Amino acid sequence: MPSVRRIAHEFLERQGLTTVFGNPGSNELPFLTGLPDGFRYVLGLHEGAVVGMADGYAQATGRPVLVNLHAASGSGNAMGALTNAVASGTPLVIVAGQQVRPAIGPEANLANVDAPALMRPLVGWAAEPACAQDVPRALAQAVFEARLQRRPSYLSVPYDDWAADAGENAPAVLDRWVERAGVPAGEQGHRLAEAVAGARRPALVLGGDIDTAGRFDDAVRLAERLAGPVWAAPSLFRLPFPNRHPLFRGVLPAGIEPIRRAFEGHDLVLVLGAPVFRYHEHLPGRYLPAGTRLIQVTEDASAAARAPMGEALVADPGAVIELLANALDASGVPSADYRPVPAPRSAEGPRLHPEEVFAALRDELPADTAYVVESTSTTSSWWRQMDLRRPGSYYFPAAGGLGFGLPGAVGVAMAQPERPVVGVIGDGSANYGVTALWTAAQHRVPLTVVLLRNGTYGALRWFGGLLGVPDAPGLDIPGLDFTRIAEGYGVPALHADGVDELRAVLAERPDGPRLVQVDTALTTPS
Amino acid sequence: MPSVRRIAHEFLERQGLTTVFGNPGSNELPFLTGLPDGFRYVLGLHEGAVVGMADGYAQATGRPVLVNLHAASGSGNAMGALTNAVASGTPLVIVAGQQVRPAIGPEANLANVDAPALMRPLVGWAAEPACAQDVPRALAQAVFEARLQRRPSYLSVPYDDWAADAGENAPAVLDRWVERAGVPAGEQGHRLAEAVAGARRPALVLGGDIDTAGRFDDAVRLAERLAGPVWAAPSLFRLPFPNRHPLFRGVLPAGIEPIRRAFEGHDLVLVLGAPVFRYHEHLPGRYLPAGTRLIQVTEDASAAARAPMGEALVADPGAVIELLANALDASGVPSADYRPVPAPRSAEGPRLHPEEVFAALRDELPADTAYVVESTSTTSSWWRQMDLRRPGSYYFPAAGGLGFGLPGAVGVAMAQPERPVVGVIGDGSANYGVTALWTAAQHRVPLTVVLLRNGTYGALRWFGGLLGVPDAPGLDIPGLDFTRIAEGYGVPALHADGVDELRAVLAERPDGPRLVQVDTALTTPS
Repeated sequence: MPSVRRIAHEFLERQGLTTVFGNPGSNELPFLTGLPDGFRYVLGLHEGAVVGMADGYAQATGRPVLVNLHAASGSGNAMGALTNAVASGTPLVIVAGQQVRPAIGPEANLANVDAPALMRPLVGWAAEPACAQDVPRALAQAVFEARLQRRPSYLSVPYDDWAADAGENAPAVLDRWVERAGVPAGEQGHRLAEAVAGARRPALVLGGDIDTAGRFDDAVRLAERLAGPVWAAPSLFRLPFPNRHPLFRGVLPAGIEPIRRAFEGHDLVLVLGAPVFRYHEHLPGRYLPAGTRLIQVTEDASAAARAPMGEALVADPGAVIELLANALDASGVPSADYRPVPAPRSAEGPRLHPEEVFAALRDELPADTAYVVESTSTTSSWWRQMDLRRPGSYYFPAAGGLGFGLPGAVGVAMAQPERPVVGVIGDGSANYGVTALWTAAQHRVPLTVVLLRNGTYGALRWFGGLLGVPDAPGLDIPGLDFTRIAEGYGVPALHADGVDELRAVLAERPDGPRLVQVDTALTTPS
Repeated sequence: MPSVRRIAHEFLERQGLTTVFGNPGSNELPFLTGLPDGFRYVLGLHEGAVVGMADGYAQATGRPVLVNLHAASGSGNAMGALTNAVASGTPLVIVAGQQVRPAIGPEANLANVDAPALMRPLVGWAAEPACAQDVPRALAQAVFEARLQRRPSYLSVPYDDWAADAGENAPAVLDRWVERAGVPAGEQGHRLAEAVAGARRPALVLGGDIDTAGRFDDAVRLAERLAGPVWAAPSLFRLPFPNRHPLFRGVLPAGIEPIRRAFEGHDLVLVLGAPVFRYHEHLPGRYLPAGTRLIQVTEDASAAARAPMGEALVADPGAVIELLANALDASGVPSADYRPVPAPRSAEGPRLHPEEVFAALRDELPADTAYVVESTSTTSSWWRQMDLRRPGSYYFPAAGGLGFGLPGAVGVAMAQPERPVVGVIGDGSANYGVTALWTAAQHRVPLTVVLLRNGTYGALRWFGGLLGVPDAPGLDIPGLDFTRIAEGYGVPALHADGVDELRAVLAERPDGPRLVQVDTALTTPS
């Protein structure tokens, strides 16, 4: 009979989970030994970076990805990064090593005493099989739960299990497949189409899930048939629509009152692939204008159930886009007239205005460049200058937890080696996932990191002003030189002193990672 | 009536929790505003480093310390570091920001939906008060729980609570005090003293808690009266006894069978201030030799209840040391003859043997130097070369989770500015808490970091050999230059090329942080 390890490796191979992002400890070695030839192990030097890289990789490939973490300390190190993967609906399959079975109860060193309980507040499913023979089936469940729930799952495996005999029933798991249907039934679709077709002034709100599901171009088709305004949902983590399209009104502000104001005059707001809503700033008010009906379509049952207003259909938003686009009479005229880009603002003194940096990116990088952005004080500058027309152009930490950006950029670049990838990272953000630079260097990942250094937690300064508490300590971060740090991790780096030098550098195509640091003036998110 | 914030700040001041280690987000600003003059905020650039620094600071001061973290993402980032604080029994009081109350249920961005559930698997107590007026009382509970349980506690506070009126009963909390008694009753003490006095060949096992409790010197007094061998408990995180004392037999190996062998011939093993036992390597066997009685004294009720063998008294081990030392007839002769240090081994080629590095530390640094060690492949070299005779000389990650060492060294040095502090950090370990270098630079913390670079996860290589799985991927970490990384974080650094250069550098007394990188040969932990 084959071993548990052998069946597990074969199952992962058949499911296409052959790239393993990990950081090993002693408990993990028996799983990692004897990996078949087709597997690739991507080592990260910190578990936060491991999960960030896997998150970017999974988002860019659209497939579940295997993560291997170490017991309680290693899993714990990853939990901040997991909050982003949860919010973006990324199907990470985390397999963690556990002490041998007799050593768990007495709390031997490196035992994770109740491993599922540790992770359950974040992941969609967590378990530790009760015996070795259940490991292959439980691993399959971890993969299927991650895919069905679109959320990380977690499996803790005592390391003595891997060499055990898998038992005669184990191979049955190799042939399993599990999928979810999400197309509305005839009556459900009919009602939805009627509501949309009958609206006098419909508006569309698109969430990051639309890009995740590969429906960026379909969303344009639907919007052009609706001929109504389109917003991106607040606290956006993927761009679901071309940001200079004439129908695009921008990212909704993340407050109750401003969103009500935006919807004024619309009898129907159709929200596709987003929670209703990920507010952030506390700006109270009525949720909706009087007379506005809100219909949400999402695959996330919790997002539907917990929303404070509106009607909801738990369904595949992509299928609903198709259904509505086909149901609408209007033929829809593709828009050629994308909104022009304004001249970038400039800053006083030697620092660049972030708009100058983003204009340089827009002009010097190819149109299909993918950007992973974690610079929270430059959001309005970003959207003023960028012109993103392709699917998968924009990634941002979905839970607002810093530490996704730099590792995420490495993961996206590893997933799409043929596509230019740029990480746009603030000097505050970079520290939460800085070790990902080393993985980029070791794998020679073609990636440009543009490091915006303004010496402060800029978004926090702005927020302190909003809250009337401008005197909080711990907001300045002087004395950081990321060119040195990058070189220490093996990534070539330079400091660009002006916009001409920056443009010249960006015009070059790297065949490995590089970091370009630039000093920027402090701006506010909005 | 004063605000919740005002009462909270005053309570913290009265309890002496005026040093705040933190990394802020928007939810935390309303707590951090208006801190009274006596407070000091220590900013860390990553929450793992924040908790590691606070852990070192709390251990070195022997007092609870305040930590301020950000919602789910920030708290999540800290959870790996928390595993070490749990295992070392460090009383960290973590206050985390939460979204405003109306925004939690709908899962607004930066809401931590069930914050206590997220942390409860690790901390001793976690809560989010049900209303603003309960915040001051709950903060007091967090401080007292941490102190009584000797474990981190966690309080999540919606940020709109801080400005609320605290209510007329709130000031009552300012005068609270809560302590625990732990001296054995007359009969309990009598039985214990009889058992020890009646033993023919007693042996002593001391855990890290003995040093934590300030009983290092008292343990020497007891051991000299017992005149029996002394071991340190396995998986040691603080040194409880002078390591070259003639009665000291070293750190117990972390396996069942080798511990049984060590105890052979002893009719009584008295374990003070340690679990029974933190095994690591799975080396099965009988727990104890036939005829050996084991008595454990610990303040940790769970450690007593879960132990797989022996008798246990849940009591203050320090009080028990005093009780036994007084009860024993023997006068006890102080030992002058500490064991001599062997000549350091040397390595072939240009790399230094770790023993040469440790011999240099021993010779060039003052005798009262405190060492924070996170170099797992050099353990046996360390104990062969070092001569540590003072309390508080040695700190190690208590759960075996990497990432404590570098931040912990910063925290210990901040707690004891008059004492020389050295971090002995492996090139694998350094990456889990590297941003602590920045905090050391900003606060000009006098600290020497000796970075041992062998280019591999050395302890894992050794463990893979033990397990018969030598071919696991992800064990090599080439291409790291920590002198560059340190400089990027503002810490002066140099690479020492040989033992003479290393000794010359170590002989200098720094008035701020510095990093000394040295290439070392691969060795095994034991």
